[in-house]
Amino acid sequence: MSDESSRPVCVLGLGLIGGSLLRRLDADGATVFGYNRSQTTVDEAAGDGHDVSTDLDTTLDRAADEDAVIVLATPVTALGPILDAIAVRAPQCLLTDVVSVKEEVARIVAHHHPDARYVGGHPMAGTVHSGWRATDPTLFEGAMWMVSTHDDTDPHDWLAVARIALATGALVVPAADDAHDRAAAAISHNPHLTAAATAAVGGGESLLSLRLAAGSFRDGTRVAGTAPELQRAMLEANSVALLNTLSATIDRLVAARDRLRDHGDVAALVEAGHRARLAYEEIAGEEPAPITGVDVGGDGWAQELRRQAHLARVWVG
Amino acid sequence: MSDESSRPVCVLGLGLIGGSLLRRLDADGATVFGYNRSQTTVDEAAGDGHDVSTDLDTTLDRAADEDAVIVLATPVTALGPILDAIAVRAPQCLLTDVVSVKEEVARIVAHHHPDARYVGGHPMAGTVHSGWRATDPTLFEGAMWMVSTHDDTDPHDWLAVARIALATGALVVPAADDAHDRAAAAISHNPHLTAAATAAVGGGESLLSLRLAAGSFRDGTRVAGTAPELQRAMLEANSVALLNTLSATIDRLVAARDRLRDHGDVAALVEAGHRARLAYEEIAGEEPAPITGVDVGGDGWAQELRRQAHLARVWVG
Repeated sequence: MSDESSRPVCVLGLGLIGGSLLRRLDADGATVFGYNRSQTTVDEAAGDGHDVSTDLDTTLDRAADEDAVIVLATPVTALGPILDAIAVRAPQCLLTDVVSVKEEVARIVAHHHPDARYVGGHPMAGTVHSGWRATDPTLFEGAMWMVSTHDDTDPHDWLAVARIALATGALVVPAADDAHDRAAAAISHNPHLTAAATAAVGGGESLLSLRLAAGSFRDGTRVAGTAPELQRAMLEANSVALLNTLSATIDRLVAARDRLRDHGDVAALVEAGHRARLAYEEIAGEEPAPITGVDVGGDGWAQELRRQAHLARVWVG
Repeated sequence: MSDESSRPVCVLGLGLIGGSLLRRLDADGATVFGYNRSQTTVDEAAGDGHDVSTDLDTTLDRAADEDAVIVLATPVTALGPILDAIAVRAPQCLLTDVVSVKEEVARIVAHHHPDARYVGGHPMAGTVHSGWRATDPTLFEGAMWMVSTHDDTDPHDWLAVARIALATGALVVPAADDAHDRAAAAISHNPHLTAAATAAVGGGESLLSLRLAAGSFRDGTRVAGTAPELQRAMLEANSVALLNTLSATIDRLVAARDRLRDHGDVAALVEAGHRARLAYEEIAGEEPAPITGVDVGGDGWAQELRRQAHLARVWVG
């Protein structure tokens, strides 16, 4: 295994997340190189001084030679062929990813590259914009970066992936894939659907309505502006967890509608939403407490990391 | 009638909207005085140099003496007793309001002060914060300010109210009360309920979820942080229009849930939301076109103002 502090990183996919990661690691003087299938993107990234290519095979050969950590940063729908190529040209490389949904990615990895050394990841960062021009080396500063943490996870590989996250300025949240996917459905994917419904209902009324729209509509529908194909790829890959949170949302809105119709009040829903928002603001507004007392690789390390993460703590190295 | 440019304004209620209005008019050198029932608020406002009182009767006597335009800026639930006092002490004064829901306020005015000269209004501005400390004289800059515009509206009174809105830096949107209330349900009240449901479902999952929450949750649930009693007063006063938009929202979410369950895709909802968001961004992103060719008080003036407002135009004087 290479010296961790100088281990190269190979980023496959240079959209918002992959591109921002490459830029951040490059800015910090790390060895980092990348691939994107679009010549335009590669030209833009190369024009900004980065070591990038449209040639996947050559990029993977180099990753194998240098024992690079490979970061999968394409949409989930593009992973299969890339993993097929990795299984042939760089089968020993440690893999991670920055794709939203962890159980689905793990299934795709297992299908296309059964012997992969793979530790999943997901930085909770993004904007409604996409493409190289939207990339930002500070995108991950202070963000939460989930790293897959299971009882059979290799601790050295886990540390290698966690250190990439920390190098971007993010904080590491250790979690099991299924817990992550349920959380992502609740706090990311479901908000996309409620934003879409809110926007569609508001926009369907009249131009007068959109002219009168102010902060509650502007902020509440912001993520509906994300490119539909990106939203679909993310949401549809997490369909089981999303079905649960969407059904819970519908149940709450139906109960509120019935109460409003029969008794004229919306107290229960407004108060539940207010409590949840205050709980979020309390968590988001304070410096996260660090996970303490865990020797990664020691007895029960993965379980203890997950336990402390469920207390909203983060791993900071 | 007083000279319009120097006509005094009397603001009843010094919360976020009323307080910000008083501060703005005062900063511009207008004659403006105010009332609030809370001694603390009045002390704070007086400490900032404003002409304010906790004595409603004295305030109304002065409004009558000076032929001030009275602005009702209390929650809708507090309007009745104030209107009773106005009917006794300042019955000739022109009234307007800055309360969210126009049909309900018009009903309350008609009940408590049947002979009132009343032209409703609603500035589309606010924050989740409330009270004097949250007031901001720039709150209305560039905001849309609906002014009730019916076939029997007195044109001089309409102009007096519209000029107060323009004096704050807002743009005037002429509309009928029922059209305003339907629009407000669609673009303001319904977003409060979807934000509440999104927050409650996200917060109900686990602390891990709230720790992972990022931009989509932060922005999509922001208005759920508004004080529940303020949300309830606003939403419950518009219950009929809100029932319609809430039911439309539920229908869209149920259709999306069924489609996701049976076919694995969320295309229809995501694409409808995206189209509506882009339509909103186009309207919000451009300088509003002005209403043209209307002589307020001329034949059919109110109807023509409403017609042009439905094309998303604004009245700028």
